[in-house]
Amino acid sequence: MTNRACIIAIGNEVVHGFIVNTNSAWLARELGELGFDVAYHLSVNDRQEELVQRIKGALDEGLFVVTTGGIGPTVDDRTRQAAAQALDAELKLDHDALAKLHERYSAVGRKFPEGSERQCMRPEGSRFIHNAFGTASCFLARKGDGGIAVLPGVPRELKGIWGEELRAAIIEEFGLHERYFSREVRVFGIPESNLNNRVQEQLESAEAEGAILVDDAVMRLRWRVQAGDQAEADKVLQPLIESVRTELGDLVFAEGNVELETCTVHLLAEKGLRVACAESCTGGMIAHLLTNVPGSSDVLVESAVTYSNDAKVRRLGVKPETLEAHGAVSEETAREMAAGIKRESSADLCVAVTGIAGPGGGSDEKPVGTVWLAAAMSDEVQAWHLRVPGDRELVKWRTARTALNTLRLAALYGKLPETIAHWVAPP
Amino acid sequence: MTNRACIIAIGNEVVHGFIVNTNSAWLARELGELGFDVAYHLSVNDRQEELVQRIKGALDEGLFVVTTGGIGPTVDDRTRQAAAQALDAELKLDHDALAKLHERYSAVGRKFPEGSERQCMRPEGSRFIHNAFGTASCFLARKGDGGIAVLPGVPRELKGIWGEELRAAIIEEFGLHERYFSREVRVFGIPESNLNNRVQEQLESAEAEGAILVDDAVMRLRWRVQAGDQAEADKVLQPLIESVRTELGDLVFAEGNVELETCTVHLLAEKGLRVACAESCTGGMIAHLLTNVPGSSDVLVESAVTYSNDAKVRRLGVKPETLEAHGAVSEETAREMAAGIKRESSADLCVAVTGIAGPGGGSDEKPVGTVWLAAAMSDEVQAWHLRVPGDRELVKWRTARTALNTLRLAALYGKLPETIAHWVAPP
Repeated sequence: MTNRACIIAIGNEVVHGFIVNTNSAWLARELGELGFDVAYHLSVNDRQEELVQRIKGALDEGLFVVTTGGIGPTVDDRTRQAAAQALDAELKLDHDALAKLHERYSAVGRKFPEGSERQCMRPEGSRFIHNAFGTASCFLARKGDGGIAVLPGVPRELKGIWGEELRAAIIEEFGLHERYFSREVRVFGIPESNLNNRVQEQLESAEAEGAILVDDAVMRLRWRVQAGDQAEADKVLQPLIESVRTELGDLVFAEGNVELETCTVHLLAEKGLRVACAESCTGGMIAHLLTNVPGSSDVLVESAVTYSNDAKVRRLGVKPETLEAHGAVSEETAREMAAGIKRESSADLCVAVTGIAGPGGGSDEKPVGTVWLAAAMSDEVQAWHLRVPGDRELVKWRTARTALNTLRLAALYGKLPETIAHWVAPP
Repeated sequence: MTNRACIIAIGNEVVHGFIVNTNSAWLARELGELGFDVAYHLSVNDRQEELVQRIKGALDEGLFVVTTGGIGPTVDDRTRQAAAQALDAELKLDHDALAKLHERYSAVGRKFPEGSERQCMRPEGSRFIHNAFGTASCFLARKGDGGIAVLPGVPRELKGIWGEELRAAIIEEFGLHERYFSREVRVFGIPESNLNNRVQEQLESAEAEGAILVDDAVMRLRWRVQAGDQAEADKVLQPLIESVRTELGDLVFAEGNVELETCTVHLLAEKGLRVACAESCTGGMIAHLLTNVPGSSDVLVESAVTYSNDAKVRRLGVKPETLEAHGAVSEETAREMAAGIKRESSADLCVAVTGIAGPGGGSDEKPVGTVWLAAAMSDEVQAWHLRVPGDRELVKWRTARTALNTLRLAALYGKLPETIAHWVAPP
């Protein structure tokens, strides 16, 4: 029998749309990994009667109900009471939890706030789940084929509690000996339809369930399989991952939950390469992405965000005659920018971009999305003409990722790459 | 009688958590503005039987059901059929819509894809809603006190259709003569609790419904009121907005849907001020935010992302003795960075930041979140010591916004400001 689940987000702010609910998607993925079939997500106001009815309805269907929100110290926080009513159990004060909460306040020298004992109430017969990330304690209870887990609405707390204790408690309470295990690789540089064709055979594997998950130009190829443990799952997953890596080569930039910028910074650090950028149309986004990665200070020397022509001349030594003859968005300017930042910074590897992000500045000859990207390494400079589809935001996003990918490939091979992304225009 | 609504997102990708559903929050806000009380959001798989039951249940309760997703050309797209069944109406081909869709394809010289006529089906008695942003046509139908609107799942299409035609059609079909009108101001630079105290009287206005909506350090103060038109609403809202502006002064950076970076770039352009930045711990984020705004090329000369000490010396003329004696994160270094970028760029107004974003690099004396921000204008340089709470991402985010606010205030007054944000440390 497949275990089934539903996710209920509780709170007026979510229902009125003042907060975008990201918890439900996160929980759905986690429940999916545990082998639960998620039937629906619901977001409701904190009206107790309605809440009881919704939870009861789901329990009657045999669902495992995971709630978020409404467990704080105020009287509006009604989830504990509603869960107890739906379970037909008495809501009781957990004295151990209360003692711990008192300790928590006295440890930081703060007074115990009035009403906070409400956060230690749970239905009789439920299992206490410790919240090391906040003051509201949580609980888990079984009922029939299903049950309920009651969690806070703050994403950081929710994720912390899940990983720390709740996930293991669910595996135990539901006897999940056969769970889902998954592996994924991340891909950059080809269109989705092309990717689909190249890994169709692996996606249609009879032994594992494959999927392509697309976040614009970054795509994730994921397979999952039911197994007793990771080692057993890997017997199926490992050959699939290897076969996809063989097929796609350097289009795969990482395995697992790794961003393109993280993988790029780590690879540059590993190879001992120091980088510098010259950015026009990306306006600092390449450096912003690189510096999101802890440890990037070992890798990034500088980025010269030369938005004006004057700055291109002054900071990078681009010749005024080049700008005059070919314009700021041209192969010649991009090459001089890359050579200039290399000379000025003495970095091992440099990337430069100049383009038209829009909405203004386009022409018939150079429409919005026209970008020149150049890279410099050792004594070599290479340039690519990109035609990047999309509006201002997308042109910046896609160009910045293409620049990161150029750095990654150069670090991988120790020389400038030939192919960097599918939006390079045919010569 | 208050009109009530619910929002149903349809699709396996949403229910499995592979897509975060942002549509429901957006629709909830829009429906709220139209005076609908949103009862719940639901996300379900595209199983037709369940879908019919869910829609029928909501219609029976007198709700206005807004669905997103499941209206494309493939056989998995079952929302049209489910809506027709729930309405107890026949699903018919709209020949006018089909003719328009054929035109659309022939205009771009593409073949009409097989099965695409499905996208022109709608229940008998429903109102056709044109989709200028995609190929799937939409519809709106009344039933009892409620009704249904069927929309695509792509956020860009959904928002386009809503603003273009659907919003007006809903007002007409539901006879919404008394609607909600709202006005908001946006605030940066004080903690939420402090803001709450200062505008408590206005928030508790008997004539309009007030709320504080918080996006970290940027806060929105919003009031809404039922009225026949904007002019009538403004009789209540205008005095509230004016009274809040008087109370908060330059803490208010904009009225309506305007980002801090947009308001800053527009103000700089209006005053004819050219700016340049020197960024260390923000790593390019200040420039990235400024260049998200179309027209920023008239304002931004350059940003020197001087992540390494070497770049600070070479690009900004920071003295090696200063770095040696006081460290990269110090008042002295920040002041030399600001003076240096001013001298190099010849910009009218400059801002420089250097700090410890974490997770590494902190010490007892200078913990993570220690930031020095300096600004230069005319012959003056001013520096502020910030203690920015949060992790790497938040320290970058908050420091970058504080830098934008410094530029905004300097443009507003024509000189360097005294107070820039509440995380300036006491001297």
